[in-house]
Amino acid sequence: MRIIVPLQGIVQGRGGLILGSLIPCALLYFLQFYLKRNRSSPPPHSPSESSANLPELAEIPRSTSRSTLSTRGSLRPVPVSSRAIAISKSRDSAYYTGLKKSLEDPYHPTYNPDGIIQLGLAENQLSLDIIGDWITANLQKSLLGEMRGDLNIRGLATYEPFDGLWDLKVAMAGFMSQIMGGSVSFNPAQIILTAGATPAVEALSFCLADPGNAFLVPSPYYPGFDRDIKLRTGVELIPVQCRSSNKFNLSIAALEREYKQAKKRGIKVRAVLFTNPSNPVGGLMHRETLYDLLNFVTEKNLHLISDEVYAGSIYGTEEFVSIAELLDTEDFDKNRVHIIYGLSKDLSLPGFRVGVIYSYNENVIAAASKLARFCAISLPTQCLLVSMLSDTKFIEEYIKANRERLGKMYALFTEGLKQLDIECCKSSGGFYCWADMSKFLQSYGVKGELELWENILNVAKVNITPGSSCHCIEPGWFRCCFTTLTESDIPLVMKRFSKVLKGHKAS
Amino acid sequence: MRIIVPLQGIVQGRGGLILGSLIPCALLYFLQFYLKRNRSSPPPHSPSESSANLPELAEIPRSTSRSTLSTRGSLRPVPVSSRAIAISKSRDSAYYTGLKKSLEDPYHPTYNPDGIIQLGLAENQLSLDIIGDWITANLQKSLLGEMRGDLNIRGLATYEPFDGLWDLKVAMAGFMSQIMGGSVSFNPAQIILTAGATPAVEALSFCLADPGNAFLVPSPYYPGFDRDIKLRTGVELIPVQCRSSNKFNLSIAALEREYKQAKKRGIKVRAVLFTNPSNPVGGLMHRETLYDLLNFVTEKNLHLISDEVYAGSIYGTEEFVSIAELLDTEDFDKNRVHIIYGLSKDLSLPGFRVGVIYSYNENVIAAASKLARFCAISLPTQCLLVSMLSDTKFIEEYIKANRERLGKMYALFTEGLKQLDIECCKSSGGFYCWADMSKFLQSYGVKGELELWENILNVAKVNITPGSSCHCIEPGWFRCCFTTLTESDIPLVMKRFSKVLKGHKAS
Repeated sequence: MRIIVPLQGIVQGRGGLILGSLIPCALLYFLQFYLKRNRSSPPPHSPSESSANLPELAEIPRSTSRSTLSTRGSLRPVPVSSRAIAISKSRDSAYYTGLKKSLEDPYHPTYNPDGIIQLGLAENQLSLDIIGDWITANLQKSLLGEMRGDLNIRGLATYEPFDGLWDLKVAMAGFMSQIMGGSVSFNPAQIILTAGATPAVEALSFCLADPGNAFLVPSPYYPGFDRDIKLRTGVELIPVQCRSSNKFNLSIAALEREYKQAKKRGIKVRAVLFTNPSNPVGGLMHRETLYDLLNFVTEKNLHLISDEVYAGSIYGTEEFVSIAELLDTEDFDKNRVHIIYGLSKDLSLPGFRVGVIYSYNENVIAAASKLARFCAISLPTQCLLVSMLSDTKFIEEYIKANRERLGKMYALFTEGLKQLDIECCKSSGGFYCWADMSKFLQSYGVKGELELWENILNVAKVNITPGSSCHCIEPGWFRCCFTTLTESDIPLVMKRFSKVLKGHKAS
Repeated sequence: MRIIVPLQGIVQGRGGLILGSLIPCALLYFLQFYLKRNRSSPPPHSPSESSANLPELAEIPRSTSRSTLSTRGSLRPVPVSSRAIAISKSRDSAYYTGLKKSLEDPYHPTYNPDGIIQLGLAENQLSLDIIGDWITANLQKSLLGEMRGDLNIRGLATYEPFDGLWDLKVAMAGFMSQIMGGSVSFNPAQIILTAGATPAVEALSFCLADPGNAFLVPSPYYPGFDRDIKLRTGVELIPVQCRSSNKFNLSIAALEREYKQAKKRGIKVRAVLFTNPSNPVGGLMHRETLYDLLNFVTEKNLHLISDEVYAGSIYGTEEFVSIAELLDTEDFDKNRVHIIYGLSKDLSLPGFRVGVIYSYNENVIAAASKLARFCAISLPTQCLLVSMLSDTKFIEEYIKANRERLGKMYALFTEGLKQLDIECCKSSGGFYCWADMSKFLQSYGVKGELELWENILNVAKVNITPGSSCHCIEPGWFRCCFTTLTESDIPLVMKRFSKVLKGHKAS
């Protein structure tokens, strides 16, 4: 069927049934001829295995060090699935290599002053004290006190719907609205709660596209998307290049170009996925661009996924516009629009593992709520968050203080970089500076970029994320997360940077 | 390719290349002829869609009630993935229907005395008071106190490895050993922690088999396996029938038979999956059967998955034997053995969502630790459990009290059923009676079983699980979970049962 259906299209206009059978006949003849000649190579194990996995398959180890082969039976090593082999052997991008290295040798002012300073992980520790104070004061009563009525341990321990407590959906809808300045309201019935934004992105991708389909993603994009989406769903990501000359803003013409090219290559595009505020650049999507995007996906009959996990972490004077706001006021088909949200960024709680799929599409909500069995949030955490998110006065104070601190650190960090002759693209939200170090590359290209990155990691002992890990087409850009630092760390970071950059000629 | 490869086999021995092309040529002619005649029906959207999904696809709604179709663009409804349609429209077994109905109208002695009594959900509430007391006393210091050193809020909020805190892996290994009476020890490095046993089963299945492969599962089996495994991994489950005449114990001959039949049908079997203690029967796997299983999977070069989530919930005099114990003492190839565990059953904490993959296979551990990003456990819950599981004195007391209570309730419940002339298969572990109500069936078959089940649900207002949801081949068996009841509830349950059973002639 898979061979016939596309052929049918070619053939119908030109010669009907006879020709439609003769072409495949000839193709089959040559294919079998080819297969006969290559009979020595073993056939793939799984009928649905993608050809991309085949080189990995060849690497299946014939025995592993830990095995104690049985004296009671088979001497054959037992195979795992080809997809497991592909995953366990998949090569890490510099993003993951850097994270791993930093974890092995983390900087600490007292215990490990020569360790690696972590600017590669998107954690906001600037306002953790505020969250900590609230939890210390409210933990016991949120989980076991009168706030949970007569539930007590029963309310923490028993089975509840996997897609989240209704109370938390209500509180989350309120929080999302509050974090967006009240400009938009959210319906709790359209919320699926998941154990972090990562499974939210995965489950949503699973629902919108079949294996081999693709999403268009304006790049540079979040380096985790590749694992989040490709690892298990089989959906492909096609970067849509944004340029420094346009401040890395999305051009609809570029989107149109990639869409056409994908179509030409026979790839079915199912959605456009973007982050707003942008990760890694930190820019906000203009209202007019959002309209253009809605028109684009409507015209092509695609889905639109707006990843808004940094919606509350903006610090400039620019206005953040949620895609939900446009849907409230304009007459677009809402069924194609989906929002990803979570508490890892805006509430500084990645360890809590709380993500949100917000969808206007009934089929997606129905399927995602069934998939939630694989990524449910622990009840103690849910109960704690019901209390915290419902404390709107606390949330208001937190948002205000957090934005001020973000803005201050951003200003200090970019100023520090400026002293080293490094310019940043203007950011208005998120935890990053998107820094142009291209003038320090020994050779202009990905190789030169990774050489500089390795030097900064191993000699300066600072982990930053090279643009190539974010699929940036222009070499020499780096993502530096400044929210894991204290103000007093900044001079040290700059001193370490300068040690390496001095050795690299500025062109 | 998928068409060619099987054909190649037929053709090679009989006529070489010419015949190998002519047969498909003729097939293609007739297929295209058929497609031409049926051109009005739209072609499937996705190239990788399985034929099993096609009937579902035909049901894609052309517009949904919630949609506001755009005035600015396309009038076409946007398609979701074929797998999402299949999932959202998949029909629920009686197991899920019963759970849903009970949730809508739950029994409460004061507020809803005519509501449905829930005996369909595997929750143990017999010993929740013990857990509740511990949490009340230790919550604050486990999460924020000196037990976490200087970590405080930082230790709860920040990113940690997705596959679980090392401290929790160590505590979990100790707990698993303790719950199994110290007969076996576990290595924390072989543990992957997940948000419940459900994602543990799914991730492990993903790692051991490719889509279209199958697991052999002694039946009756846990009715959730169908969703847990088939929903997203594409792995099939083949029941291996166990009989009442053999007390529902596994026969290796039946296993062998199903293996051969699967092979004949061209299905690649990759593993044997079993629960021990059995869910739903409650029997324990004999040591000799475990040896037979190990020999069987060794001979066929398969994996062996032992689901031991009820390992600590035994109450008889019989001995529980973990598959890990045999591997410690015998010279089997450990690479093919994997254990599923979790805290939902033995620690009465399903709401905490904590599961375990315990594997001896390095490739599986490597792949599963990457998949853990989709099912990580919240840090507050992990920190709380590090303290709780490390409190071995408390755990010892809890296990002892819990087993006594389980045994007492089992005796009371089976005695109650006996008064109604219902015999149970002997259980030694788990939360269930596996009750033979076949004599009350109006017609002997699945239809009669479901009629009785519906009567018990809607008239007697008790939700139990019919054997057919567990793939039991003999009609009239029902799984009744007794651990959600108090002793004083039992007479009420029996009264309700008898109301319906009186109307059904006992044959």
